[in-house]
Amino acid sequence: MIGLEQLGQQAKEASIHLSRASTKDRNEGLTLIAKQLLEEQEAILKANEEDLLSAEQNQISKAVMDRIRLTPERIKAISDGLLDLVELPDPIGRELDSWTLENGIQLSKVAVPIGVVGIIYEARPNVTVDAAALCLKSGNAVLLRGSSSAIHSNIAIVKAIRSALEQSNMPINSVQLLEDTSRKTAEQMFKMNKYLDVLIPRGSQRLIDTVIEKSSIPVLETGAGNCHMYVDQSADSSMAIQLVINAKTQRPSVCNAIETVLIHKDWFYSFGKDLIDALKDHHVELRGDQQVVSIDPSIKNATEDDWNTEYLDMILAMKIVNSVEEAIEHINHYGTSHSEAIVTTNPDHAVKFLNEVDAACVYHNASTRFTDGFEFGFGAEIGISTQKLHARGPMGLEALTSTKYKLSGEGQYKK
Amino acid sequence: MIGLEQLGQQAKEASIHLSRASTKDRNEGLTLIAKQLLEEQEAILKANEEDLLSAEQNQISKAVMDRIRLTPERIKAISDGLLDLVELPDPIGRELDSWTLENGIQLSKVAVPIGVVGIIYEARPNVTVDAAALCLKSGNAVLLRGSSSAIHSNIAIVKAIRSALEQSNMPINSVQLLEDTSRKTAEQMFKMNKYLDVLIPRGSQRLIDTVIEKSSIPVLETGAGNCHMYVDQSADSSMAIQLVINAKTQRPSVCNAIETVLIHKDWFYSFGKDLIDALKDHHVELRGDQQVVSIDPSIKNATEDDWNTEYLDMILAMKIVNSVEEAIEHINHYGTSHSEAIVTTNPDHAVKFLNEVDAACVYHNASTRFTDGFEFGFGAEIGISTQKLHARGPMGLEALTSTKYKLSGEGQYKK
Repeated sequence: MIGLEQLGQQAKEASIHLSRASTKDRNEGLTLIAKQLLEEQEAILKANEEDLLSAEQNQISKAVMDRIRLTPERIKAISDGLLDLVELPDPIGRELDSWTLENGIQLSKVAVPIGVVGIIYEARPNVTVDAAALCLKSGNAVLLRGSSSAIHSNIAIVKAIRSALEQSNMPINSVQLLEDTSRKTAEQMFKMNKYLDVLIPRGSQRLIDTVIEKSSIPVLETGAGNCHMYVDQSADSSMAIQLVINAKTQRPSVCNAIETVLIHKDWFYSFGKDLIDALKDHHVELRGDQQVVSIDPSIKNATEDDWNTEYLDMILAMKIVNSVEEAIEHINHYGTSHSEAIVTTNPDHAVKFLNEVDAACVYHNASTRFTDGFEFGFGAEIGISTQKLHARGPMGLEALTSTKYKLSGEGQYKK
Repeated sequence: MIGLEQLGQQAKEASIHLSRASTKDRNEGLTLIAKQLLEEQEAILKANEEDLLSAEQNQISKAVMDRIRLTPERIKAISDGLLDLVELPDPIGRELDSWTLENGIQLSKVAVPIGVVGIIYEARPNVTVDAAALCLKSGNAVLLRGSSSAIHSNIAIVKAIRSALEQSNMPINSVQLLEDTSRKTAEQMFKMNKYLDVLIPRGSQRLIDTVIEKSSIPVLETGAGNCHMYVDQSADSSMAIQLVINAKTQRPSVCNAIETVLIHKDWFYSFGKDLIDALKDHHVELRGDQQVVSIDPSIKNATEDDWNTEYLDMILAMKIVNSVEEAIEHINHYGTSHSEAIVTTNPDHAVKFLNEVDAACVYHNASTRFTDGFEFGFGAEIGISTQKLHARGPMGLEALTSTKYKLSGEGQYKK
């Protein structure tokens, strides 16, 4: 097994060559990978079976096992995804801005690759292809560190990717896998700021928190979504009910689903019962504040914990507020700055909410479920950033780019 | 003295109010601070004398003492600087992009404050005003941590700033100083990612390295400049000599001055002697590779260390190369990705250099000394970023902003 230091050096070296690869070279590389994954499908599926067998022996949950599992259909879908990526415009080389300095020097600001990207992720082997492909498309070398539970699949997948790279004009070390999945090696990886330009954790909040705590490499944080919907006094009742149901139940396990609904007291006393009935019809378990419980004693009392919890499940906390201001305050206090929504027909309240809620995405009269790189039209998604630097909200290929100023003069010197 | 946790909470709370302050409010606040600094000038100068006295007792160098020293003229200049900042356009609230999603939701991407900015800096008390003012202009609360050698000055300055804020529509806790300058407290501050959205170290490379190593808060890295100028085969001889002299000697103590000159062997054998003479005339001490020393044995031999050193002094390393490729390789290996220049009349070499050198700013036929927020026309400068995320190169007020997506619908839900 190759040591971490060597992997870092190789990645750095590959990134220099990769940054010079043409759009055509990078797209051809992706096409070759798409082909090679299908060609090596049998080996990949066999390796995947080993992972599934270990998972079974380790009594890993069915849900996690399903995330590890590959099938011919899934591999075909992964391969097709690569061909979609080929069609996207090149994020590299775009001129972002240009102007002439007072002294006549002509300045051009262009998009360039970041360099070497480190990605730490859990379980799903499809992330291996996804992450590698997004990095290649954006001219970055990548060092992958998956979980031990998918290590055989990851090794087989990266073998296929690298044999495709060998046939391409891109360096083979553009994509490398850290095969040692020990915690010690992961922690060494967090400190490799000499070679890695950015570290992206994809997985549980615990993984993300560990990376933030320990990394000396800049981190692109993709985090939790404790999202809210606020139903204002003047909200259209059927729209409000439809949006709350959609934002909670359409796919409760994802970060842009809501966890708490805040309801103006006037709306609640007119339509609260209808909303509660609709939620019950959709098998949503409710946790309410005192006022909610007082009109429906079958609902459990919400505690402070409920306002803080990202259930990622068919559970919804419900709180009655006296004003849009109180809703905004609650959200800014308990929210994770991911996706927040107001349902209202009052334009002043909508503007106030959009301005004063501190979150990556703030919605008026729409479901929070649209916070997604594909919905936003980016054609790809690295993750949804909940930090405020570099990129905030859904991240497309642009989030994997940096910039360079090119300045051309005629001998100008500083006086 | 108020504890760090409380300072953090207060900053967070202030940032919420500050993010809602109008352009007019923020500019009025800056104007009031400009006025108040002049009004409290006597108290500030008295506090500064205490710092200078301690510095003398601690046998601190004259250079550092000069950086601590305030005078009525310096305070006037600091105050005038604030009035210049008032005149700059508001970086907050700008619409950066807008489009309509496929489902008809209208999306607008706007610039918003980052939130709470932590700044850790050394010696110069003028940075206290500068940092606070840039944060206020961009709607951010700031927690300042200066050095113990300027603590009395900093306390007096922040007192003046806060009494100006008290007269304004901005929260007084928009600007807070960490008065405990112990290393222990600084290290606690590095871990306050609950309250601080970004940490900006301003000072020595050692300070910056410590912050990068230990911070769990995203860092805006402003770093070292081991900058190069490459004189190509075809370079105009008088332009090349003028640019090397300028980039080395115009102000050798700054990060955008050059530390190594790389010279194509053909140019060197025609004009090397002229360049060496000119550098000697400007009192530059040279460190040369074997070829350099062989034509002028009075020049010291360069070692591996020299290629790695940011002298920040009237010393220049000189190396002969055989091609533009060799120059690019040397720069990408030893450089710090700050500012790099080529002098050439060969357009292909210029394009190659601009494309392949990995640095924030790459110059053709101009001095590296122009890497500067003011020269770039930003009207202000937070520092020069040598990292690749968020901002790269000179950072103006925009680097202190984040973004928010505002989405307006008519009841759209995810199908």
